[in-house]
Amino acid sequence: MATTSAVKKDAHPFNRETLEALLTRRFFFTRAFEIYGGVAGLYDYGPPGSALQANIVEFWRKHFIIEEEMLELDTTIMTLSDVLKTSGHVDKFTDWMVKDSKTGDVLRADHLVEGVLEARLKGDKEARGVKAAAVVESDADKKKKRKKDVKSTAVQLDDSVVEQYESILAQIDNYTGPQLGELIRTHAIVNPDTGNEVGEPVEFNLMFESSIGPTGQVKGYLRPETAQGHFVNFSRLLEFNYGRVPFASAQIGRSFRNEISPRAGLLRVREFTMAEIEHYVDPLDKRHARFDEAKNIVLSLLPKDVQAAGHTTLTKMTVGEAVAKGIVDNETLGYFLGRIYLFLTGIGIDPARLRFRQHMQNEMAHYAADCWDAEIQSSYGWIECVGCADRSAYDLTVHAKKTGQKLVVRQALPEPIVIERWTAEIEKKLFGPRFKKDAKAVEDAIMLLDEQQLVKLKTELANGPVPLKIADGREFEITSDLLTISKRVFKETVREFTPNVIEPSFGLGRIFYSLLEHSFWCRESDENRGVLSLPSAIAPIKALIVPISNNEQFAPFVRRISAQLRKAGVACRVDDSSATIGKRYSRNDELGTPFGITVDFATVQNGTITLRERDTTDQRIGKIEEVVAVVIDLIDGTIDWAQACERVPAYTGVQDVD
Amino acid sequence: MATTSAVKKDAHPFNRETLEALLTRRFFFTRAFEIYGGVAGLYDYGPPGSALQANIVEFWRKHFIIEEEMLELDTTIMTLSDVLKTSGHVDKFTDWMVKDSKTGDVLRADHLVEGVLEARLKGDKEARGVKAAAVVESDADKKKKRKKDVKSTAVQLDDSVVEQYESILAQIDNYTGPQLGELIRTHAIVNPDTGNEVGEPVEFNLMFESSIGPTGQVKGYLRPETAQGHFVNFSRLLEFNYGRVPFASAQIGRSFRNEISPRAGLLRVREFTMAEIEHYVDPLDKRHARFDEAKNIVLSLLPKDVQAAGHTTLTKMTVGEAVAKGIVDNETLGYFLGRIYLFLTGIGIDPARLRFRQHMQNEMAHYAADCWDAEIQSSYGWIECVGCADRSAYDLTVHAKKTGQKLVVRQALPEPIVIERWTAEIEKKLFGPRFKKDAKAVEDAIMLLDEQQLVKLKTELANGPVPLKIADGREFEITSDLLTISKRVFKETVREFTPNVIEPSFGLGRIFYSLLEHSFWCRESDENRGVLSLPSAIAPIKALIVPISNNEQFAPFVRRISAQLRKAGVACRVDDSSATIGKRYSRNDELGTPFGITVDFATVQNGTITLRERDTTDQRIGKIEEVVAVVIDLIDGTIDWAQACERVPAYTGVQDVD
Repeated sequence: MATTSAVKKDAHPFNRETLEALLTRRFFFTRAFEIYGGVAGLYDYGPPGSALQANIVEFWRKHFIIEEEMLELDTTIMTLSDVLKTSGHVDKFTDWMVKDSKTGDVLRADHLVEGVLEARLKGDKEARGVKAAAVVESDADKKKKRKKDVKSTAVQLDDSVVEQYESILAQIDNYTGPQLGELIRTHAIVNPDTGNEVGEPVEFNLMFESSIGPTGQVKGYLRPETAQGHFVNFSRLLEFNYGRVPFASAQIGRSFRNEISPRAGLLRVREFTMAEIEHYVDPLDKRHARFDEAKNIVLSLLPKDVQAAGHTTLTKMTVGEAVAKGIVDNETLGYFLGRIYLFLTGIGIDPARLRFRQHMQNEMAHYAADCWDAEIQSSYGWIECVGCADRSAYDLTVHAKKTGQKLVVRQALPEPIVIERWTAEIEKKLFGPRFKKDAKAVEDAIMLLDEQQLVKLKTELANGPVPLKIADGREFEITSDLLTISKRVFKETVREFTPNVIEPSFGLGRIFYSLLEHSFWCRESDENRGVLSLPSAIAPIKALIVPISNNEQFAPFVRRISAQLRKAGVACRVDDSSATIGKRYSRNDELGTPFGITVDFATVQNGTITLRERDTTDQRIGKIEEVVAVVIDLIDGTIDWAQACERVPAYTGVQDVD
Repeated sequence: MATTSAVKKDAHPFNRETLEALLTRRFFFTRAFEIYGGVAGLYDYGPPGSALQANIVEFWRKHFIIEEEMLELDTTIMTLSDVLKTSGHVDKFTDWMVKDSKTGDVLRADHLVEGVLEARLKGDKEARGVKAAAVVESDADKKKKRKKDVKSTAVQLDDSVVEQYESILAQIDNYTGPQLGELIRTHAIVNPDTGNEVGEPVEFNLMFESSIGPTGQVKGYLRPETAQGHFVNFSRLLEFNYGRVPFASAQIGRSFRNEISPRAGLLRVREFTMAEIEHYVDPLDKRHARFDEAKNIVLSLLPKDVQAAGHTTLTKMTVGEAVAKGIVDNETLGYFLGRIYLFLTGIGIDPARLRFRQHMQNEMAHYAADCWDAEIQSSYGWIECVGCADRSAYDLTVHAKKTGQKLVVRQALPEPIVIERWTAEIEKKLFGPRFKKDAKAVEDAIMLLDEQQLVKLKTELANGPVPLKIADGREFEITSDLLTISKRVFKETVREFTPNVIEPSFGLGRIFYSLLEHSFWCRESDENRGVLSLPSAIAPIKALIVPISNNEQFAPFVRRISAQLRKAGVACRVDDSSATIGKRYSRNDELGTPFGITVDFATVQNGTITLRERDTTDQRIGKIEEVVAVVIDLIDGTIDWAQACERVPAYTGVQDVD
């Protein structure tokens, strides 16, 4: 007796339209305010979508927060503008946009150039007779960004033009606004939707702005990432961790980016759920205590030097080897790449469609020292779903400078060390009378100066008073009588340093969508019978309970089974609608429900129920209590389907009917 | 052998300052952007706070969503302004504010009047020699709102003035802005912080406003409740439920209210996590299938007629009796009150400090037909933590009218019925030529007219063309040749109706804070040793693991125990700091950690560890595997402490030392 049937999942080629129709029909997600016409880039998750997301979040929390004893945070979405000014987001978190000269429609400048030039190249290839499908894949392969999809027409270009376009596309992320404007004029790029010219690129900040309180004087932004909420709480976190590094804080929550013209469904949205880890580490010691547990994990890597040479060949390598060879900079970064791999494959991402791509120097965020993206391949190409960046000491340093608060770790040295250092000694008694209530702030500002600044200040003071900026931006005049700057010898027993931050940052919506693509297939017998093979642990509903008909005798059994499952925390659903059993099973295959329980006349007579497995459609039969116990064990992950088959025999009564 | 020691939890009177100091020190929560000076009404949750909140959310999800097979939703926070215009929030979700004439500080008008008059009454009572404490309690008892706390001075008032003030305070929720202005002038109320006069009350909308996309033309608000996200998705939800009612949707998420001048910590904030259920029910049949499971739950009720008579006496009554007597309107409302009671007491709210208060007619929201609040008593008085409102068909009706989409349930009638009804029959062939692309919208607008409107239209059309407003607000001219309005006989096989909505709405932050107050006490031996007696299921950390010293021999045991617990999903924490064992235990008592495991030399020699229970400080001893198994069972809730004591004997080695 075979315990499982063979399942052929690749009988039909993947079709995105079929999947998307299923996802909308079964209310995984839909456009927000659909009955009001919707708004681009905003999506609502329906019952299976939000349950799936909640299960992914729960898996993430166990995998990272509980397993690694991370310090969870839940900080506000509404963020004081000062915080985001300091972090650089107010000035640098921008995209360039252009306006259609007639309709006023707004387009993202780089996406416009990219979309139009790619369409021209595609048209060129078509004219030259190159197979279109291959082109699409190679484009998708190269591009992370969701560009404007432009219809191509088969027009052949000069070889030199092709070369020029390819060169522009290779560096599309590097252009400034004025350069994009130049490209638009030079290459006669117009809005492909209307054929109209577009204006000069204008910078647009991607944060949603609002104002806090009734006076309109306190400006706020919706956070574009959760990270700043970690950093401003660093001192409290450190204290909670008894003053020691390394440790990590973690947060799961909503963030917002006011995208210029979002397309590509869930892959580029204006409101999204993130899960971010900030791991604080000694800059001189980036080893990881649990590195051994990750070092044998094999990853598909795409290092920056391979990309720089114009290739996309993946290298399979263990985390240990990648760190030993210096391809991945340090143990902590390597450890997290391994843990990210385990998380993604654990929820059901196909390992064959998962790669880790290192950022090129020029594409890194303003704060990053090194960065690897976990990219997942879907019909949209390779999409960044997790970023794993070494943010260095950037954020903690800028917040400390701005607020005058020390954001440092103090570590007792094993043995005191003697060092010579330029220092300022303050004439405390002059400060009060001179600066009144600002005395402390002026003193703090002096104390924050580094050695180089002190030497400079000493030289300047020799020539007269020097203006000094304090934390809130005001300036005070300093004179040489106020302080003595000299080189002094110290015996230090404590080392003080700003930790570096390694940040794995997860875009849960992108992972969610990629997972749905990886889980989707259609039955060999019928291309309209879609199935989502989601792992039990994260399937929205774990068990479907179907009475074979409306007969009232079945109701108490349905209630009892459903109560037993719920009591064990198993999310189940009763489908007592009038559709056929086959139809009811099929629509739960579409929801990814791994197990189905049927109540029929045998239940009433013998106390047996049948158990159906989603992928194989295998059916087993057993006493209610035994089947329920098997389902609970299957969902807990303590047994697999083969083991379940050993506990409940095959059902030979009827086949799964349609 | 006694299995548990007696614990005296009321040895020291409750002191809010002590609790708040503990909550800040242990980073349950703190002011957001604290290092930038903070912003009123915005709070960040630290590790124990966010874990506690996550556990409450998880409990809620199991108790409501999984147990009742609710349809979970996750909709956007950023909400299209049109949606909130329709729901009434753009026009009616406001408070009245006044400005200090000199400083420009803004105060909420009703809170100002309330705070000042109460302070005067308190001063009067002090002058008359009435004990202050009693007064405070009675005030807190009466007031839900967090008013401005004003210092009182002992000045006696005329008896008539006392009466007048009391009457004003009793109806403080009922005044319009101009009336509040009148009261401020008549009673010479000034800003108590500055002594300055205040200006006329001005209306202030409590929603945070922003704009979506780069053009600035699409206005959005941060949602003030999650409810509208349910209603705009009603048709998809209904379809997901096979077209049948009753069913419920549920959502847990962040909402925002731009409070004028928030005080009172977590009880009045600008950003908060809500959990809302919208239960859709046939307006003609508000029975509940599982009512029997809730009918014997005993609740403390404060019905509206008792309050109208000026009393606050609570009536203890079963849910069944309250519904039978018509005190609670219907089974569904009663069922939810019972379920709310079980949820709140399940997470650890003291049942003696929980009451259900019915709204008076004049205090209900603009959409509500009936409403009961679950109020929890804390040092701030009785605070509304869960609202349970019958929103009638209000929301679905207004959205349907505005969008022209039918938001109704269609139910097959057991037998067809014959009815006579005014109907419009349309001359389809005239519509296309006359209205072009708007033909469908005009037809829809006609179809939405009820019988009364049709009769009126028929009369008007007899006199010539009539303007008709369509869904988007534009008007079109209708002439009598376009349609025939007549009374016709129908055989109906389907009943169509707009369901009523019963909405339990949970303010999780308020519940969170109340729970902390209810869980807090200080050891009899030392009023500085605070303990949070949180139930295991929701305690932030379930088990503390402490090696008795830094000796390296202990490390492998600590790692092994912690790995075993984490594998079972038990959140644990290692404290290997250099503090004494007693100190380490007491700071984990402050975090509410229910169990402590000590690794010492006996562990190395005999493989035993000790297990400590938080409340009693009882210590047991056993083999590692057995103690770990007992802890897992304790956390799962399959055994209690008395049963644990049967499995592991008492430890008599040393006492819990400080």
